[in-house]
Amino acid sequence: MPFSRRFFSAATARAKPLSLHPSTKKNSRIGTLRVVGTDCRGIVAACTQVLGQYNCNIVKSEHWTDTQKRMFFQRLEFHHPNDDSVDHQACEDELEERLRTIQFSQSFLSQSNLEPTFDAATTQVQGFPLECHWNWRDRRKRVGIMVSKYDHCLWELLLRHSANELDMDIDLVISNHDTLRHVPETFGIPFFVTPITPETKTEQERKQLELLQNVDIVILARYMQVLSPIFLQHFPNRILNIHHSFLPAFSGGSPYHKAYDRGVKLIGATAHYVTEELDDGPIIEQDVMVVSHRDSVQKLKKKGRILERNVLHKALEAHLEDRVIVHENKCVVFGD
Amino acid sequence: MPFSRRFFSAATARAKPLSLHPSTKKNSRIGTLRVVGTDCRGIVAACTQVLGQYNCNIVKSEHWTDTQKRMFFQRLEFHHPNDDSVDHQACEDELEERLRTIQFSQSFLSQSNLEPTFDAATTQVQGFPLECHWNWRDRRKRVGIMVSKYDHCLWELLLRHSANELDMDIDLVISNHDTLRHVPETFGIPFFVTPITPETKTEQERKQLELLQNVDIVILARYMQVLSPIFLQHFPNRILNIHHSFLPAFSGGSPYHKAYDRGVKLIGATAHYVTEELDDGPIIEQDVMVVSHRDSVQKLKKKGRILERNVLHKALEAHLEDRVIVHENKCVVFGD
Amino acid sequence: MPFSRRFFSAATARAKPLSLHPSTKKNSRIGTLRVVGTDCRGIVAACTQVLGQYNCNIVKSEHWTDTQKRMFFQRLEFHHPNDDSVDHQACEDELEERLRTIQFSQSFLSQSNLEPTFDAATTQVQGFPLECHWNWRDRRKRVGIMVSKYDHCLWELLLRHSANELDMDIDLVISNHDTLRHVPETFGIPFFVTPITPETKTEQERKQLELLQNVDIVILARYMQVLSPIFLQHFPNRILNIHHSFLPAFSGGSPYHKAYDRGVKLIGATAHYVTEELDDGPIIEQDVMVVSHRDSVQKLKKKGRILERNVLHKALEAHLEDRVIVHENKCVVFGD
Amino acid sequence: MPFSRRFFSAATARAKPLSLHPSTKKNSRIGTLRVVGTDCRGIVAACTQVLGQYNCNIVKSEHWTDTQKRMFFQRLEFHHPNDDSVDHQACEDELEERLRTIQFSQSFLSQSNLEPTFDAATTQVQGFPLECHWNWRDRRKRVGIMVSKYDHCLWELLLRHSANELDMDIDLVISNHDTLRHVPETFGIPFFVTPITPETKTEQERKQLELLQNVDIVILARYMQVLSPIFLQHFPNRILNIHHSFLPAFSGGSPYHKAYDRGVKLIGATAHYVTEELDDGPIIEQDVMVVSHRDSVQKLKKKGRILERNVLHKALEAHLEDRVIVHENKCVVFGD
Repeated sequence: MPFSRRFFSAATARAKPLSLHPSTKKNSRIGTLRVVGTDCRGIVAACTQVLGQYNCNIVKSEHWTDTQKRMFFQRLEFHHPNDDSVDHQACEDELEERLRTIQFSQSFLSQSNLEPTFDAATTQVQGFPLECHWNWRDRRKRVGIMVSKYDHCLWELLLRHSANELDMDIDLVISNHDTLRHVPETFGIPFFVTPITPETKTEQERKQLELLQNVDIVILARYMQVLSPIFLQHFPNRILNIHHSFLPAFSGGSPYHKAYDRGVKLIGATAHYVTEELDDGPIIEQDVMVVSHRDSVQKLKKKGRILERNVLHKALEAHLEDRVIVHENKCVVFGD
Repeated sequence: MPFSRRFFSAATARAKPLSLHPSTKKNSRIGTLRVVGTDCRGIVAACTQVLGQYNCNIVKSEHWTDTQKRMFFQRLEFHHPNDDSVDHQACEDELEERLRTIQFSQSFLSQSNLEPTFDAATTQVQGFPLECHWNWRDRRKRVGIMVSKYDHCLWELLLRHSANELDMDIDLVISNHDTLRHVPETFGIPFFVTPITPETKTEQERKQLELLQNVDIVILARYMQVLSPIFLQHFPNRILNIHHSFLPAFSGGSPYHKAYDRGVKLIGATAHYVTEELDDGPIIEQDVMVVSHRDSVQKLKKKGRILERNVLHKALEAHLEDRVIVHENKCVVFGD
Repeated sequence: MPFSRRFFSAATARAKPLSLHPSTKKNSRIGTLRVVGTDCRGIVAACTQVLGQYNCNIVKSEHWTDTQKRMFFQRLEFHHPNDDSVDHQACEDELEERLRTIQFSQSFLSQSNLEPTFDAATTQVQGFPLECHWNWRDRRKRVGIMVSKYDHCLWELLLRHSANELDMDIDLVISNHDTLRHVPETFGIPFFVTPITPETKTEQERKQLELLQNVDIVILARYMQVLSPIFLQHFPNRILNIHHSFLPAFSGGSPYHKAYDRGVKLIGATAHYVTEELDDGPIIEQDVMVVSHRDSVQKLKKKGRILERNVLHKALEAHLEDRVIVHENKCVVFGD
Repeated sequence: MPFSRRFFSAATARAKPLSLHPSTKKNSRIGTLRVVGTDCRGIVAACTQVLGQYNCNIVKSEHWTDTQKRMFFQRLEFHHPNDDSVDHQACEDELEERLRTIQFSQSFLSQSNLEPTFDAATTQVQGFPLECHWNWRDRRKRVGIMVSKYDHCLWELLLRHSANELDMDIDLVISNHDTLRHVPETFGIPFFVTPITPETKTEQERKQLELLQNVDIVILARYMQVLSPIFLQHFPNRILNIHHSFLPAFSGGSPYHKAYDRGVKLIGATAHYVTEELDDGPIIEQDVMVVSHRDSVQKLKKKGRILERNVLHKALEAHLEDRVIVHENKCVVFGD
């Protein structure tokens, strides 16, 4: 399958048509399309032409070519007439076909700085095949949240969700402690406790995966356990974590203690996708805050909580709006 | 001429092919295209198709539709083969023709929130006609700088220019005082003094306009005189000013005194295009800095100088890279 | 009474000894002392000597003299032995006596830039008499919150209070609407509705004042009514408001609409004490956030909510920790 | 000598009375006093009393006690009558005597959280002896700047110095390359080239030390050589370096490349004192800037230059105003 849909395609497949999103107009549907792959001439035109043929109106688009690596990254947001005569699937299929054709037949840029990586003999593209991913705003992403004992990020997510500021459905909250049960229950969201010990970890993760089987994204809202590679495989680039330092500084445990000991004048927070390498996944969003010599570890923690929730929220928003493309352990994050 | 080229077209016309820009590859030319007008379906496709036909490779693009006002804003950056067989002018002409055709023939979006403003009887577009503006990176913009007695913004411009960080040619520096003569002269840039009194202002402005007749942009790098409407008419959206406050707060004179008196906890700087209404032109860039009760007016001025030069520089960079479109006294500023 | 205790003294008087604050050590008491008045030599020494005599250990202090206006501002934080043998009142009284003596007897600085404003004939100080204000951490400030329909600032206050991050007691929440009843009730905090119409305003304010009679501070957490001068008189420099713009820009109503119309590149929030002049009270804290041409009014509001709650919280923290001195419509805010 | 003056005392001793600083009033002298040591009751009073006795007027003071480590840090800024009858040396001597007495005779705090570390048997203070350091504003610090090939930090220092914004005298600029000769020469500042190879390093450093023998501070304004421990011994806590990352992230070489490879969303700069451990000295100041996926290494470098010069300048200002106390590899930085 040379033409995979790697980005969140499982998510899209699983997501059932849920309640119509308030911002969707009754006679139009809002969609996003992300395209990524080895750059070749004509991609931009191909995407826009097909969308035009199917009566889509593009309202926002951003594209960037990494000219050194010849990689192409694009995001399009469009309005699509929402009447029954329109075959959305046909539109998706045709675009994918068109993009595949372009990539295999067209000659690549031959400018001096963009050496062709095209092997004429085999007609094989020596690059990263074009992928495209469609999403429809009215299919809201389903979310599972994992927490331990800190409640500030959890409150942030639940409050902003209840204020209709986060375009997602929260299916459940899982914790390794019973401490925060009252928070999800305030909002009528199911809460499950899966206590972790070195002995029970494998079994509990199996249980967690079962609970999370219908979600598109897992948010680690200060979940203090390291997830196993097996767990991670189920959610490639779909587990968001908030780390309480400006990575790569102070990775691992107790970043505020380390920041205090080093005497830094800024503390930070980093939201990233979780990969097997601890705290080394692709960074979505970072922010920092000024601190002083007067700040004890306790005070750094208190100040940092504001950063953590804001950075997590901002990263989540980017993810939910399909503004992120992950490539080679980095995130391309398009504008909001 | 319904299809005007309002943005900087005079500038482009005047700019002579100057020294080849270092970042331009020997066998390709870098160009930018900005398109603005009433939104209609097919614009994005039209632009990209024509560029494709003429062998351009788009390396960066950003577009945004103001769905409430139905306005379309786009910027494309592309590489164009630089061989003699390519007719750049034909490419430009064809795109303009195509855009004109689209706008007049195509039906507009008829989604509920995008009511057509199309008058069938007259076949007149009831909107803002599509405009497009081409620029070629190897035609560097020519700049005239105007200053009074403060030197920090002037040094910033000349130093960063001499470090090849600003893609422009500085033709001259004009001042109403002789104070800063040594600064441009350090860099071998011509310096002219046009002392202003209420009586001589008209005459001196005439002289200034003569000196500036070949420049594309005028930068007011802390020039403390108000320019007359006659002067402004020569440079619509092409005079950049740095104001030392976060506008609209503290417009007019002595903003640091006003900030001190009001007891604000932040001071700011604003770069904007100059219009007849004082300090009310379209804002390109703003930034602020924390201050405290301990800061005297003198100290606010000192701190503010850092802001002023940084904000002016950032705005200028956006202008030089053709990342700004002015519309109804606001700036659309595309990403860097 | 030439030696008044203007700052929050009413509040201190009213505040009953509440539950012992967790950060107070069992055998020591934490206190703060703020001194403000016309600068004269020996003030710093006088304060520290008296505190020393009564066995206080100063753990943090900050002082600043406005040399132009000859005003002295100081804040001291100290640990006081908490055994019955210590007469706190005597300590307070002695310091006040000492400060009064200093101001009347000592000659003023006679440096060239600090001309004496001392009238020898009458032995009257021609300045602002020294005031000092004591507070004890174990007497927590009592707070009344007023809201309308926006809940983000209210949630912020109640959540951070329940997380022991705000050193205060929340007595009640008052609103002119019933909309947010569920929020205080989640935390078991009394909620009162006082619907306001032009006809009932006077009567409702009377009722509000009755409800608030035991509180030290009133927090307007997005309360959308203008308070009458009569109301304000009850809480001089003790009503905190959050305004959703970087004042003085966009004072009055609909600041996000005004920001959108002006096309600013930053939005802001300002926390200030309420005075009779609308949105013109002394500023405690301000912050801003970058926005772009793509942000609709709706999106500015959404982004701004994060600013509003953070700025309000930061200002409140400063107030609760006795780090603010108001003087001539400005705030001296000491470091945290 | 139990009562050493470790902070910059060598510097003060060496600094000859240079040109009278413009901000010094003709009949008063501005001084700063920093005191650091194990906290004990009465220190604040002792300092202020002695200054009072000698007719000093304190215009600004800040003190902080690290209650966990029982360390005391204070900075006082005062005006001192500048007539011949005043014996400045006597004032300094008396204060030192008083502080010594306090520390040895007074009982320490015996609050539960501040266990005495006082050994009654030996009457030895089990802590860090009190140190105090005097500086007089009219004895400007003498500075040597070391650079390699990047000019942005050097220009910043020389321009701001020539604008009277940095209260210091620049004695000379040293480089391991001839590249930047024109910069100091623009300002009439002596420039010396000491080319470094592995073979010549020892010899060249000896030469550099000779050139720098009269300076108080060495500023590494992007000097790309590692200084030997022998060199460092001559300037304990008196060599300021600017590192182009938010330390401890990306220490060592090529931080912008590392930042690009990691895909961070912020880049930073750190000003610190140089110690034997590379990039691990006490941090004075840090700042960051937002970057995006579109930023190449080249663009990160360009953006970072603005950060570097600003952070270096801010740290230098703190150092020059005697607002920094170094303790256990951290900086206490008092407010400006």
